[in-house]
Amino acid sequence: MTHTVISSHSRELVIGFDRPFCIIGERINPTGRKKLAAEMAADDFTTVEADCLAQVAAGAHMLDVNAGIPLADEPAILAKTIKLVQSLTDLPLSIDSSIVEALESGLDAYQGKALVNSVTGEEERLEVVLPLVKKHGAAVVAISNDETGISEDPDVRFEVAKKIVHRAMDFGIAAEDVVVDPLVMPIGALGGAGKQAFSIIRRLREELGVNTTCGASNISFGLPNRHALNAIFLAMAAGAGMTSAIMNPLHDEEMTGIMSADVLLNNDLDCRKWIRKYRQPSPEGHAGSEGGRRERRRRRG
Amino acid sequence: MTHTVISSHSRELVIGFDRPFCIIGERINPTGRKKLAAEMAADDFTTVEADCLAQVAAGAHMLDVNAGIPLADEPAILAKTIKLVQSLTDLPLSIDSSIVEALESGLDAYQGKALVNSVTGEEERLEVVLPLVKKHGAAVVAISNDETGISEDPDVRFEVAKKIVHRAMDFGIAAEDVVVDPLVMPIGALGGAGKQAFSIIRRLREELGVNTTCGASNISFGLPNRHALNAIFLAMAAGAGMTSAIMNPLHDEEMTGIMSADVLLNNDLDCRKWIRKYRQPSPEGHAGSEGGRRERRRRRG
Repeated sequence: MTHTVISSHSRELVIGFDRPFCIIGERINPTGRKKLAAEMAADDFTTVEADCLAQVAAGAHMLDVNAGIPLADEPAILAKTIKLVQSLTDLPLSIDSSIVEALESGLDAYQGKALVNSVTGEEERLEVVLPLVKKHGAAVVAISNDETGISEDPDVRFEVAKKIVHRAMDFGIAAEDVVVDPLVMPIGALGGAGKQAFSIIRRLREELGVNTTCGASNISFGLPNRHALNAIFLAMAAGAGMTSAIMNPLHDEEMTGIMSADVLLNNDLDCRKWIRKYRQPSPEGHAGSEGGRRERRRRRG
Repeated sequence: MTHTVISSHSRELVIGFDRPFCIIGERINPTGRKKLAAEMAADDFTTVEADCLAQVAAGAHMLDVNAGIPLADEPAILAKTIKLVQSLTDLPLSIDSSIVEALESGLDAYQGKALVNSVTGEEERLEVVLPLVKKHGAAVVAISNDETGISEDPDVRFEVAKKIVHRAMDFGIAAEDVVVDPLVMPIGALGGAGKQAFSIIRRLREELGVNTTCGASNISFGLPNRHALNAIFLAMAAGAGMTSAIMNPLHDEEMTGIMSADVLLNNDLDCRKWIRKYRQPSPEGHAGSEGGRRERRRRRG
């Protein structure tokens, strides 16, 4: 059984097929958030702090930290943000940047075993990011595109993922420390995007035995009622073998979808988390059970 | 590709992996509904009529009709109910009884190709129900239990289903006219019930190539927030290969789950049904697309 272990200074998190689905909070990211970007560039971490605490309270298992601000000193800001976040929570972090110097500075600042987000299949990226991951004993998100771009052919994307896993092993990184992102396309543009994702996720699980993640909200790009679609996508992806997602834990629908999937995949022991969250107090203290019994008699009466 | 064709006098419905998930409305069933049972026994079909029209309006693709009332003349009432329902809607029907005489009377009254609900794997049931199905050119729901009861071993349940499919073929019924119900257990009592169901459904699809159905609400028996759990179960089961369910189409959460699964499995062409149902009018007429574009830029910025 594949277990990707990520840790902070005082807490360990295991991503695996037999574990609750891992929710990686995506909020600490200035990309597309002007106010947050301006704050972080001006050494003001008020919003970072609020986003951190809100995501912890909402039930995130890990937090993604990104400091990608144009023209700013990303390595320094990322390191500072990571130190701040680690002072606020003991959740493990995912260190998110497309700039190698920023990843390096983030890893230097981080206490524990981080998840590096991310490396793609381009040879020049593999050669700079993987040694860094190895040096820090970290795990890494592998995105299944390469020099040729993002293929629409799921077999090509699977092969790119496989290549990254094998290259990581060449650098001394265990396959279980590679978490593959199969790249989810918007289904409004590409009708087969869901089936494609489920099929790649299943192959990654069955053939490579690796954990997987994705930016789930991409699936519903451009469509109405996105949260409902995201929630069902997350659950169906979990059913196909996906073990984590980079997402907004403040969205109730998505969180309920994931909690349901945990129940249905037997990763919520005795449905305890589900019952704790949704139980309504009743005079008898057994909410729902009588109604359930009646219904059971009805079906196949 | 397996297609189970069910029809009324004027309308054909195809159940299949490449078709929208088939919603079989379960409401016309007096079991556990005292008022409805009393009405039907007294030749009053007011509630039947209302249940029929409400389910049609809610988007059911087929209606299940059951007239199981203790001490009543079930064959006569079932025939009458079927005639009434067929006068109100052209949706195809599922004829639901555990009494062979009632199935026979229902089939005699029915115009079109019905779905007979159901036959189990007990030899004496197979020998009376299957010839009836063949004689009327109907399709049949095969429930995967037999003389030994309902096994908790999914392999045993799969084997029972396989036996019924083969026995049906012995009687001249095509495999595509057998829709298997793998029997969904309550997950509150049996933590592996979800994984078990998904695994049997997948095997039924991949190894036997048959369509499947189930009474979906059983999964959440005894638990709080049942509709959310049912909705996610239905979608995950569809992801594993389930193609229909006997359910209450008046429940919005379950219906949204199924509509999402249709989108994600590419069985809602160009997301048309989804967009029609959830689109919000906006001044530009392109609700959500700007937000989506922003988000796309953000991820992997």
